[in-house]
Amino acid sequence: MVKSNKKLKNIYLDYASSALSQSANPGAIHELGVKEKNKLENARAKIAEILGTRRDEIIFTSGATESNNLAILGLVQNFKKPHIVTTNIEHASVLEVYRYLEKTKQAEVTYVAVEKNGIINLKKLKKALKPNTILVSVMYANNEIGTIQPIREIAKIIRYHNKNLTRLRHPLLAEERAGVRCLFHTDATQAINYLPIQVEQLGVNLMSFNGAKIYGPKGVGVLYVKRNTPIRKIMFGGDQEFGLRPGTENVVLATALADALEITEKIKEKENKRLIQLRDYFITKISRVVLDIKFNGDLENRLPNNINITIAKIPSDLLVFELSARGIMASSKSACKSSRAEGSYVIKAIRPESNPEIGGVRFSLGRRTTKRDIDYTVKSLSQILTKLKKWYD
Amino acid sequence: MVKSNKKLKNIYLDYASSALSQSANPGAIHELGVKEKNKLENARAKIAEILGTRRDEIIFTSGATESNNLAILGLVQNFKKPHIVTTNIEHASVLEVYRYLEKTKQAEVTYVAVEKNGIINLKKLKKALKPNTILVSVMYANNEIGTIQPIREIAKIIRYHNKNLTRLRHPLLAEERAGVRCLFHTDATQAINYLPIQVEQLGVNLMSFNGAKIYGPKGVGVLYVKRNTPIRKIMFGGDQEFGLRPGTENVVLATALADALEITEKIKEKENKRLIQLRDYFITKISRVVLDIKFNGDLENRLPNNINITIAKIPSDLLVFELSARGIMASSKSACKSSRAEGSYVIKAIRPESNPEIGGVRFSLGRRTTKRDIDYTVKSLSQILTKLKKWYD
Repeated sequence: MVKSNKKLKNIYLDYASSALSQSANPGAIHELGVKEKNKLENARAKIAEILGTRRDEIIFTSGATESNNLAILGLVQNFKKPHIVTTNIEHASVLEVYRYLEKTKQAEVTYVAVEKNGIINLKKLKKALKPNTILVSVMYANNEIGTIQPIREIAKIIRYHNKNLTRLRHPLLAEERAGVRCLFHTDATQAINYLPIQVEQLGVNLMSFNGAKIYGPKGVGVLYVKRNTPIRKIMFGGDQEFGLRPGTENVVLATALADALEITEKIKEKENKRLIQLRDYFITKISRVVLDIKFNGDLENRLPNNINITIAKIPSDLLVFELSARGIMASSKSACKSSRAEGSYVIKAIRPESNPEIGGVRFSLGRRTTKRDIDYTVKSLSQILTKLKKWYD
Repeated sequence: MVKSNKKLKNIYLDYASSALSQSANPGAIHELGVKEKNKLENARAKIAEILGTRRDEIIFTSGATESNNLAILGLVQNFKKPHIVTTNIEHASVLEVYRYLEKTKQAEVTYVAVEKNGIINLKKLKKALKPNTILVSVMYANNEIGTIQPIREIAKIIRYHNKNLTRLRHPLLAEERAGVRCLFHTDATQAINYLPIQVEQLGVNLMSFNGAKIYGPKGVGVLYVKRNTPIRKIMFGGDQEFGLRPGTENVVLATALADALEITEKIKEKENKRLIQLRDYFITKISRVVLDIKFNGDLENRLPNNINITIAKIPSDLLVFELSARGIMASSKSACKSSRAEGSYVIKAIRPESNPEIGGVRFSLGRRTTKRDIDYTVKSLSQILTKLKKWYD
């Protein structure tokens, strides 16, 4: 591999560190390693700037699932049976962590049920807070029904709670909490494409997201960790990512994620407007065609690209199959739970009275979605329903 | 995105699941999701075939670090303070897991020190086994000094140990162990390129490796988990990877890893011969030029591509910098620990008498390495040493 270079030979003898010299190990101290390290730090700096925060507060992970696990498990292990507040419609990678912590008696968890519109009631959240609550974990926007949670208001409630806490002078309490107040984690995976993501303004201490939902690469995620947040690593090995996440850093994916986030931010305002118009066109049109339709999740506080419907008596899985047969890719529940027979727990949370088999069908629009797509989808849905009504009426 | 197709429209309305329709979520039940799932399962089947095992024994992870963490932490959590046997030269992603388990009193760990040639003494290993040993964890080949451990022989010792165990009739013991015998994990990350990897023949229960060291993608690893191995997940969320590893599957990386492994297997024999010739040429040549040289690790039982040298009085980091300035990328210690000031713990294990600053320099050869590269490297090393000797003699 001797290449003539202006000044230098280029002989790569570090195959054991990374077999491909064009993506050398950023932990290597030779020239190619240093170059890779610089690329990685540029990606980190770009993301930090977009989030309005500092470089050392950005941790790269393998995805949003790992980010959520690291945020929660990494924090909880510092406390003896702490109390945590969350909602009943979090993503599986948050909810299942809490179920595990409950099962193993490592934490006490309060699940605040969302209202029928899929949004948390702030009074109920406030009531759930206790002196030993170390974490509130509320997703920014829901993956199935697209409802947006009032993140800034929740942050305010937590700040108020913490202020009052420090006034308490109970000596045991002071020692037990050891100066740590209630922190705020949000899973922003679904929100990052559409909503403001300046972390200081949101008032969060921990925020997770990934590349796959922002037209970036799969296999890489970010956990924003505000300085002085007492979290520890959950996997062990190398010293990468400020000691919080071992394993050779993935420079290619991190760079692609930073670039994807940059584009998302640039077009956010314009694209949101376009999507809201499309979404509302879809809602208006489908309401005219399908009579027994219910829309899931608040119609105001929802993502610009999300429509989630329930059609009386028609199982949502069946609708998704019928749509797919006509070339339309929609979804009936979180893909992360698709191997389970049960229906969506999110739809169940907002429509406890309904048959879980019926569930809801999610249409999530994107950059390449056009009005013609919507027209064809509504037309197809109408045909499918005409066909299915024979059996389901 | 309405495309004319032979039969079908293709309207992607599942952006919330994966923003890029060309890499839909394999958990989605629509047509594009099913296609992705098939690709993933093809990659899994290809890897299973190469390892001579079954599809459901192949778990995709984010890399070798995660594979090692899952293997060890996933197993240990099923037992109350079990005993584990390992070596003192394992990769950080194994060693640091054990340090954590010791620190948190979740396990008792015996570190069998390797001999001066960097290879484990089988008698010492045998002696370390106890009735409550649930795991032996020995790397297949070392990342720094390239020594190959006698995996099949270790497997034999464990089998013998387990046979004798079942003859013991102590009732308490029987209950405590609940039918689980000592299992065998190997980190094969450095070996997979060069050595036999048929898991049944090796006799291992758990085997880790990744894509980055086999000319494949970064960000993806594999954990082979033999059927009936009682391991549990260490992160929580979706049901992917047979319930052992949550998070949307990375079809692109998994497929690229399977393809890389296929190529590696095809050219292994031929490439090994070529590398052994190059390596031995390097060793012969450098021995003539550099007089105060010591080779680290057994010269017989070592990887075809690995040379690790210690030159008296010259710090290895300095040598790596000097080599890099001449366009030669070598390594002085594991990149995973490069941010630490301490020297290599592997070199320290085989040369406890030497100054840790001196350490060793690793040259790891690869597919693009030529004889000319070796000639230039030896020449450069000679020049560097002439220059440095002035200061270090």
